[in-house]
Amino acid sequence: MRDIGVGLIGTGFMGKAHALAFRAARAVLGDVPTARLEILCDTPAERAEQMAAQFGFARATDDWRALVSDPAVEIVSITTPNRMHCEMALAAIEAGKHVYCEKPMGLTLDEARSMAEAAGRAGVKTMVGYNYIKNPAFEHARELIARDAIGTPVHFRGFVDEDYQADPELAWTWRARIDEAGLGALGDLGCHLVSMAYGLMGPVESLIADMQTIHETRPIPDGSGRGTVENEDVASALVRFANGAQGVLSTSRSAWGRKNRLGFEVHGTKGMIAFEQERMNELQLYQNEGPVAEQGFRTILTGPAHGAYAAFCPAPGHQLGFNELKVLEAGAFLREIAGGEKVGPDFADALEFEKVIHAIAASAREGRRVTVQG
Amino acid sequence: MRDIGVGLIGTGFMGKAHALAFRAARAVLGDVPTARLEILCDTPAERAEQMAAQFGFARATDDWRALVSDPAVEIVSITTPNRMHCEMALAAIEAGKHVYCEKPMGLTLDEARSMAEAAGRAGVKTMVGYNYIKNPAFEHARELIARDAIGTPVHFRGFVDEDYQADPELAWTWRARIDEAGLGALGDLGCHLVSMAYGLMGPVESLIADMQTIHETRPIPDGSGRGTVENEDVASALVRFANGAQGVLSTSRSAWGRKNRLGFEVHGTKGMIAFEQERMNELQLYQNEGPVAEQGFRTILTGPAHGAYAAFCPAPGHQLGFNELKVLEAGAFLREIAGGEKVGPDFADALEFEKVIHAIAASAREGRRVTVQG
Amino acid sequence: MRDIGVGLIGTGFMGKAHALAFRAARAVLGDVPTARLEILCDTPAERAEQMAAQFGFARATDDWRALVSDPAVEIVSITTPNRMHCEMALAAIEAGKHVYCEKPMGLTLDEARSMAEAAGRAGVKTMVGYNYIKNPAFEHARELIARDAIGTPVHFRGFVDEDYQADPELAWTWRARIDEAGLGALGDLGCHLVSMAYGLMGPVESLIADMQTIHETRPIPDGSGRGTVENEDVASALVRFANGAQGVLSTSRSAWGRKNRLGFEVHGTKGMIAFEQERMNELQLYQNEGPVAEQGFRTILTGPAHGAYAAFCPAPGHQLGFNELKVLEAGAFLREIAGGEKVGPDFADALEFEKVIHAIAASAREGRRVTVQG
Amino acid sequence: MRDIGVGLIGTGFMGKAHALAFRAARAVLGDVPTARLEILCDTPAERAEQMAAQFGFARATDDWRALVSDPAVEIVSITTPNRMHCEMALAAIEAGKHVYCEKPMGLTLDEARSMAEAAGRAGVKTMVGYNYIKNPAFEHARELIARDAIGTPVHFRGFVDEDYQADPELAWTWRARIDEAGLGALGDLGCHLVSMAYGLMGPVESLIADMQTIHETRPIPDGSGRGTVENEDVASALVRFANGAQGVLSTSRSAWGRKNRLGFEVHGTKGMIAFEQERMNELQLYQNEGPVAEQGFRTILTGPAHGAYAAFCPAPGHQLGFNELKVLEAGAFLREIAGGEKVGPDFADALEFEKVIHAIAASAREGRRVTVQG
Repeated sequence: MRDIGVGLIGTGFMGKAHALAFRAARAVLGDVPTARLEILCDTPAERAEQMAAQFGFARATDDWRALVSDPAVEIVSITTPNRMHCEMALAAIEAGKHVYCEKPMGLTLDEARSMAEAAGRAGVKTMVGYNYIKNPAFEHARELIARDAIGTPVHFRGFVDEDYQADPELAWTWRARIDEAGLGALGDLGCHLVSMAYGLMGPVESLIADMQTIHETRPIPDGSGRGTVENEDVASALVRFANGAQGVLSTSRSAWGRKNRLGFEVHGTKGMIAFEQERMNELQLYQNEGPVAEQGFRTILTGPAHGAYAAFCPAPGHQLGFNELKVLEAGAFLREIAGGEKVGPDFADALEFEKVIHAIAASAREGRRVTVQG
Repeated sequence: MRDIGVGLIGTGFMGKAHALAFRAARAVLGDVPTARLEILCDTPAERAEQMAAQFGFARATDDWRALVSDPAVEIVSITTPNRMHCEMALAAIEAGKHVYCEKPMGLTLDEARSMAEAAGRAGVKTMVGYNYIKNPAFEHARELIARDAIGTPVHFRGFVDEDYQADPELAWTWRARIDEAGLGALGDLGCHLVSMAYGLMGPVESLIADMQTIHETRPIPDGSGRGTVENEDVASALVRFANGAQGVLSTSRSAWGRKNRLGFEVHGTKGMIAFEQERMNELQLYQNEGPVAEQGFRTILTGPAHGAYAAFCPAPGHQLGFNELKVLEAGAFLREIAGGEKVGPDFADALEFEKVIHAIAASAREGRRVTVQG
Repeated sequence: MRDIGVGLIGTGFMGKAHALAFRAARAVLGDVPTARLEILCDTPAERAEQMAAQFGFARATDDWRALVSDPAVEIVSITTPNRMHCEMALAAIEAGKHVYCEKPMGLTLDEARSMAEAAGRAGVKTMVGYNYIKNPAFEHARELIARDAIGTPVHFRGFVDEDYQADPELAWTWRARIDEAGLGALGDLGCHLVSMAYGLMGPVESLIADMQTIHETRPIPDGSGRGTVENEDVASALVRFANGAQGVLSTSRSAWGRKNRLGFEVHGTKGMIAFEQERMNELQLYQNEGPVAEQGFRTILTGPAHGAYAAFCPAPGHQLGFNELKVLEAGAFLREIAGGEKVGPDFADALEFEKVIHAIAASAREGRRVTVQG
Repeated sequence: MRDIGVGLIGTGFMGKAHALAFRAARAVLGDVPTARLEILCDTPAERAEQMAAQFGFARATDDWRALVSDPAVEIVSITTPNRMHCEMALAAIEAGKHVYCEKPMGLTLDEARSMAEAAGRAGVKTMVGYNYIKNPAFEHARELIARDAIGTPVHFRGFVDEDYQADPELAWTWRARIDEAGLGALGDLGCHLVSMAYGLMGPVESLIADMQTIHETRPIPDGSGRGTVENEDVASALVRFANGAQGVLSTSRSAWGRKNRLGFEVHGTKGMIAFEQERMNELQLYQNEGPVAEQGFRTILTGPAHGAYAAFCPAPGHQLGFNELKVLEAGAFLREIAGGEKVGPDFADALEFEKVIHAIAASAREGRRVTVQG
């Protein structure tokens, strides 16, 4: 298999995760092309140089347009703040590059739509960084449902909470601005939940929702007073899936104690599956089978019997970590580019998730049931 | 303290729970009157006789009206199927008795309203069997909030799930009929959740909701075909509390694996409290205090430091059971009748809970935001 | 069924537990005689009077010998401090009474032996208050093993920890004295673990052990200095069961955070059962059955499918409490006295448990393997 | 910082873990030298070639002696079966290489001693692969103890269980032979527990122990009958630490359901710390501080506040995985070789762990207290 050249924009939380994932993918998975780390972009240039040396990129730049147009780059990874995703992705697509973009795709549904359309027209491959749905535990949940292990899914519950905006006196930042961050908890966290709900239950048809900015102002760091928080801290929705089931989604970025509490329950006619990301190596399974006196939720520790786990470790219960979900994601993208099947979520898939979170926001603002556009 | 005569109608799940509670209340709590077990009513008369002997009642009857009018009876305990609550309670009130009635108060909001009004006019004491809010763990949660241990409550999540209607081929029963059971999951389970939300967050102002009958028909036991399930298996609501916070409520009676999963999270500006009834002796508390590296949810095992626990056991972590919540409820009612303060929920309080569950049903039916009537 | 007269000595933690249990047994279980609460004994007499009124005993006394010889008393319940158990039990047996005694039976193995012998000679029924082995969860664990659900038991782990002596500056009390309390953690807590190990694995043949007084002195409450702690805070043993399996037992009364942490694991050739008393309504079961990808520990919530649970509640997962284990114990004793089968543990059974804890103490003192006497 | 050349022997579970760790160390940690992947050794040569391509090694060989003597190799990583560790390590040391060896060091205490002595004489750096003690959760436990957060450690409990030898009909392999595998559960699992106990409590002074081969024979794969299992399935010890505290250690490789259950409790005079590897991102902390009614075990999710976690992820609760512990280990070794402080465990440290597991085996065989040699 030939190598594939990667250009990475951003060296923060997600930038590092992409770098580590590309470094590891071939070594872990075996059956994917080697990612050739070509160019790393950040500003200032010194930061880019320093992190390129650390991450093992051949070159560094502070000019993302140079990166995008570099002939050695086949994949452009975009891990910059949300407001830059769209412009960078469109430029990369126009340069004929495959694009690996962090979620949310853009600030608005229009941005997301334009990105999906451009990718479709250009015929490039795309991947959006939804991480958690690459978890072997999650894949096993999907497989259990497909195998009828819990019967027909009839109800869904999902939550995703963190506490990074729980402190009322935390400083005002760009995260609070709609023109910088777009949606609040929905864009940052809720989209993950939607990606899971979609994978487990299929598309959402319509919903009613409510949302709230809990902390309406925050102190501006320069001491100049308090800035307005323009986007939501919490949002919740009652959804109707196309499969006929109802469900509840709720997200908060102001939930003290929750660090990465992304969880779901799928209620089926023969059982239930439950999961919490804070214990990402465990799946809870209840099946109405066997003697009543021995029924109970089974705590399944993921192991080599579960999807891609074996590539990391041949022994069960040894635990995968967050960064390894990214390895699976990068690996899936590399494999697709080398001619393998699409795994996604690509821009078209992710647009579907975006439609749901924007429908939640619209329903909450307008106080009415919103149909998710097909 | 003088004894108080009790007449109990019903010998099923809740009938037995009342009998055990009245037998135990004085012995456990010390500072309440002895409940004199006067008359037990059930049909047929043999059943009443047999259970009166077992429970220790002095007399038995199959005529609830005779019980209600018996001069030795001061408290009438009503534990019959929902559709009989209202008639019995009104008769007991008219006879000047104090009434201890199981939830839900009646089949309809009108019934509940008539009961609350009659009790108010007659000046009798009333208690509705909401059990779980008598848990020392719950009382401690309320105390923590009152003490500002988690700051201002800004968001609420609550769930109550069981699986007694999860099996699609379970027989059709009276529970499926609106004129026998009233609401479905909402009336049976959801009202408990509302009682907790109310105790923690205060009144609900308005809400939007959705609900669904998952299993639309069930086999009629006599083999004559399938009967229609008239009430809901699941219901969910997005609520706005009078205190300004939003919340999510959801209930299912078709949730495989959940046996008594009544749980909540109160999100505050300084911390969080979480609870699950299936681990009813544990309270989860997160406080944004002390070094970040030592923060985490604390699993507090209830013990003598928590409310009424000490009356049952001087040693912490020894576990109270469901029936002991009933002892606390019966004890509170006996104490009130002997001149103590009202603890409730009395009919007026419970009417507030009923308004919420009926508002949920109305919103779900009508597809619009419903204001809970003051 | 005729009533059975009960005389209860002691009104503390266990005295109250006995009183509540006798009050409830018939009402809960149905098929046991009514316990007639005849006499309650404590000192001073006022305390006895007050608690008799609260608990519902007909008479009160401060003279335990009068209670023991009272013709209306058929069962003598002994819940006094350990050093009085033997004398009271022997007197009760001599008076021809059935005896329900709290654990440990006595201060020394000789005391326990004399009690078992006297009961045997007199032909009276006896019961020792081992509470936890009456838990439907525990009974179900035994049944699972009997049914070969986990294959042959090949290893055992057991622990019982509390923290009531964890604070180094807690006052010196009678608990620290061998002539008042006998053994320390072993006598108070370890014997419970032994009763469980015995029920699950059968008799212990030999063992090696170690033990330690962690807090060697404690402040004497009158300020006169520090008193010596004569008995052990922790004790541990490596045991060999007669069935050929090995096991580990360990107990501490100085384990901060543990309130009633009595737990075990039975390792079998086909599965494992695990249990923790602090979650006494849950049993963990792993079976090497079905697809590997779905194996895991099942959290079984006790319910009506488990032994005596149904007598308390027809709905699963509603939780029994500590006091209800006592109801089952008292009920078993009442049933036996009325002609039913022995459930035990009677004095002969409990003597076997005592032999193990004293063998642990002997091995620890002498530094050698000790064979448990047959 | 200059690069450091690595030669890796072995491409199995641990071989891959080393390869991934060396690939990632610099990129994750920043402040360590780049590991230059020089030579990978396995047999047959094709396997070595294939895995070298996958892991990113420059060259492959089937001749470990060639690898050891290659001038481009500075670190020799040994991940072969136990019986080859000693010979390879001695050869590498003689060639002046730094050695990174998987545990256990060798088959016998003599082997381990010869390895430690040789490394000491040669002045090369060594590291033994104890993985779990590199966990930020474990490091935080150590830090809490050092900071007196739980007072003086007074008791220890530790367990390490897996189920890879739980099935009685699993085939007989080299693992069952003393001359191939050395000790059984002790050598494979118990040594991890000892490394943790050592890190938390300091050295063990003496102990008494017991052990057992549960499954005495196993079917030979070629159908030629049953082979004898020569080493232990379970082993347990009661230890006395040099700090005066006692403790319990127990290990099983035949414990159904346990996948990587390496856990401990440190009981202190002011609190307790508990940990389980199967939830390796959580630390349980109880402190006797603040109101009794709010005390409880705190579930601390590891995050950037805990040691090296931040290098992997700036967000708490996102979970590290098993392979990332190896990154920390490899990183510590690279840093030391580049002139940083020793972190260890080096051969001298690991020899101390080996002394304890061999003392356990000796005590179990001889039935007497064994003093661990200084």
